[in-house]
Amino acid sequence: MKQSQLFTKTRKEAPADEVSKNAQLLIRAGYIYKEMPGVYSFLPLGLRIMENIKQIIREELNNVGSQEISMTALQTKEKWEATNRWSDEVVDNWFRTQLKNGTELGLAFTHEEPIAEIMKQYVSSYKDLPFFAYQFQTKFRNELRAKSGIMRGREFLMKDLYSFHTNEETHLEFYELMKEVYIKIFTRLGIGEQTFLTMSNGQPFSKYSFEFQTLSEAGEDTILYDEKKKVAINKQDYSEEIFTDFGFKKEDFDFKEARSIEVGDIYTLGTKYSEPLGLLYTNQDGKQVSVFMGSYGIGVSRLMGTIVEVLADDKGIVWPESIAPFQIHLVSLCSEEADVKKADELYETLKKQNKEVLYDDRQGVRAGEKFADSDLIGIPLRVIISPKTLANDSVEVKKRNETKVEIITIDKLLNN
Amino acid sequence: MKQSQLFTKTRKEAPADEVSKNAQLLIRAGYIYKEMPGVYSFLPLGLRIMENIKQIIREELNNVGSQEISMTALQTKEKWEATNRWSDEVVDNWFRTQLKNGTELGLAFTHEEPIAEIMKQYVSSYKDLPFFAYQFQTKFRNELRAKSGIMRGREFLMKDLYSFHTNEETHLEFYELMKEVYIKIFTRLGIGEQTFLTMSNGQPFSKYSFEFQTLSEAGEDTILYDEKKKVAINKQDYSEEIFTDFGFKKEDFDFKEARSIEVGDIYTLGTKYSEPLGLLYTNQDGKQVSVFMGSYGIGVSRLMGTIVEVLADDKGIVWPESIAPFQIHLVSLCSEEADVKKADELYETLKKQNKEVLYDDRQGVRAGEKFADSDLIGIPLRVIISPKTLANDSVEVKKRNETKVEIITIDKLLNN
Repeated sequence: MKQSQLFTKTRKEAPADEVSKNAQLLIRAGYIYKEMPGVYSFLPLGLRIMENIKQIIREELNNVGSQEISMTALQTKEKWEATNRWSDEVVDNWFRTQLKNGTELGLAFTHEEPIAEIMKQYVSSYKDLPFFAYQFQTKFRNELRAKSGIMRGREFLMKDLYSFHTNEETHLEFYELMKEVYIKIFTRLGIGEQTFLTMSNGQPFSKYSFEFQTLSEAGEDTILYDEKKKVAINKQDYSEEIFTDFGFKKEDFDFKEARSIEVGDIYTLGTKYSEPLGLLYTNQDGKQVSVFMGSYGIGVSRLMGTIVEVLADDKGIVWPESIAPFQIHLVSLCSEEADVKKADELYETLKKQNKEVLYDDRQGVRAGEKFADSDLIGIPLRVIISPKTLANDSVEVKKRNETKVEIITIDKLLNN
Repeated sequence: MKQSQLFTKTRKEAPADEVSKNAQLLIRAGYIYKEMPGVYSFLPLGLRIMENIKQIIREELNNVGSQEISMTALQTKEKWEATNRWSDEVVDNWFRTQLKNGTELGLAFTHEEPIAEIMKQYVSSYKDLPFFAYQFQTKFRNELRAKSGIMRGREFLMKDLYSFHTNEETHLEFYELMKEVYIKIFTRLGIGEQTFLTMSNGQPFSKYSFEFQTLSEAGEDTILYDEKKKVAINKQDYSEEIFTDFGFKKEDFDFKEARSIEVGDIYTLGTKYSEPLGLLYTNQDGKQVSVFMGSYGIGVSRLMGTIVEVLADDKGIVWPESIAPFQIHLVSLCSEEADVKKADELYETLKKQNKEVLYDDRQGVRAGEKFADSDLIGIPLRVIISPKTLANDSVEVKKRNETKVEIITIDKLLNN
């Protein structure tokens, strides 16, 4: 895409009320727009990141046989009353609204109840189980404060998967598999090294659960983590009991303490929702039994914010190749017609090679400003084409996350 | 995908309160789930249709240089007050909600105001114009009644594009282009023949606008259409004046009257929103001028409902190839191990050929039930494999929208 055509522009300043690093950088680089605290619109570059993250998650979930659906935000209260999650005293972050006739509705903050209700249509026998359904869907949470940019939104995109099993044993098989799936996802997203499988309190669903925590000063959590063993405990849940219950010995671990961001969680729900809602199946003995459920969340917009927090440097954002909005930032410093033509040609050739290229073809913008913009936007490979490089049929290449600058021929770039 | 793995199942009956044909069929076939009137969740097959429709729209919009974004549902009231669209007396279908601190919010029913506000960040000079931005986004409209299935939703997916120009002249160039783009989209979606460019009242935006109306008894509109000239007038806007204003002569048209569904609309907004919101640019004379805007809508879920209404027959849904959830419905009537193995092999081979196949591998389901399910689900090509066809290394093929049944060899199917 030609940068002259992109309607967004970089900004020197983020809004004064924006205190989080992720949103400051993303707003300044033109990825997102702040509608109000915790509520952000996604602009062309930002939407590309979101779609790339979604696609990686989708591939890994489909690989294990999950089926994608899309549920609604608007919710009638009956099924939430059945599980005691309608009242503000139990769930204090509902956004509520109502129909013209006065019927009270809520905006879903999660979807255990709606999906259990849907599945009553489709589950009758043990032969219908297990299966796994997920969605990428907008969640609404009426947070009292929202100061973490896109890491804690009032309206945000979440991937939530729900699994349905005959019993705990088959659930736990899938639960273990999902640990691996999540680790694969975070690794592909470029934050595998910093992300730890973390034992934690499982409330409100079960005694314990696992979270995935990514080390970052911007995090709201604190974990004790063992770098080598690649496991952690959420500090607030640290107790002698948790070790006993997980079958671990405290002395086997070498824990360090750090701030971290919860990027995913996987819960054993058991029959907590299926029982009150009547999601039953007939087992092999002809008996009616409650379906055994699990739920598995990843905040997609939070992940995007986390990646910014963890990988950015003092010049701007650093995207991993796997989710970058473009792979190459072709920055032209050409202004003479013959040079501009060569730069245009290089752009067209790269496009024909199916390379994803943002082409900074803007005229009348100083070189220093173009470099600063390029660093701020954070595309993995910067390629500079200028009268100077063209004198040797060359370009200057530099990876965003390295300092080494290299001059290579255009031929070499194209045959790479 | 193996049908035995698909968690949805066909149903004999739709919910008793569901009066629309589109939702009845889509619910019975397992495409959607009714949460409440006007609010539907999309199940695996239904989401595939939606994504296929979106992809066709996206391709055509990107082809003319549009940029995809995603705005928010939650809206603060200030910008809507500036354009006089906050009050219930002006816009009577707001869903309202509030933050914990009592701040009143609305759920967007459209996005002219939010996008004009965003663009104040990015438009300053005439050099920044024109550009076009669109989104696929969930709209909320608090309809008093919702009896048209997914054709009139309280929560529904819409494609809304907004264009930004220096003046009316350059706007109208794009406006004309969008007429062609829309016709291309509806043609690719299989309803081109039934869809008419329709002159209509442009309220609340301008005196006149164009709609795209698809002939259907299920429609809420009535149009006068000229089949040969491929134009129509919305009957409620029919007047001598409209002919004069559009520069037409009444006697040149051969109008028939019919019910129709509005599947798209394109509006000239002018400075109706840019002026009160202060979306200005500096023109070549250094003067500050309001940006000239247009907006262009397509209800994506409504389109899906329309296609069902228009193309379905008395046996069920008939999807056009362009958006079908799968291209081939491979229906196996095999139960002996050797035959099942051959059916499995055929499925695997088709998948390797990158064919999109729903494989009805269910055991213990009668042939008649499988055929009825296949007709209800509406995949374009049905391929039956049975002990009888296997005796001649053949399969039986039938197009969903034709009655002709053909026996062809498996070789021929695979080399087609």
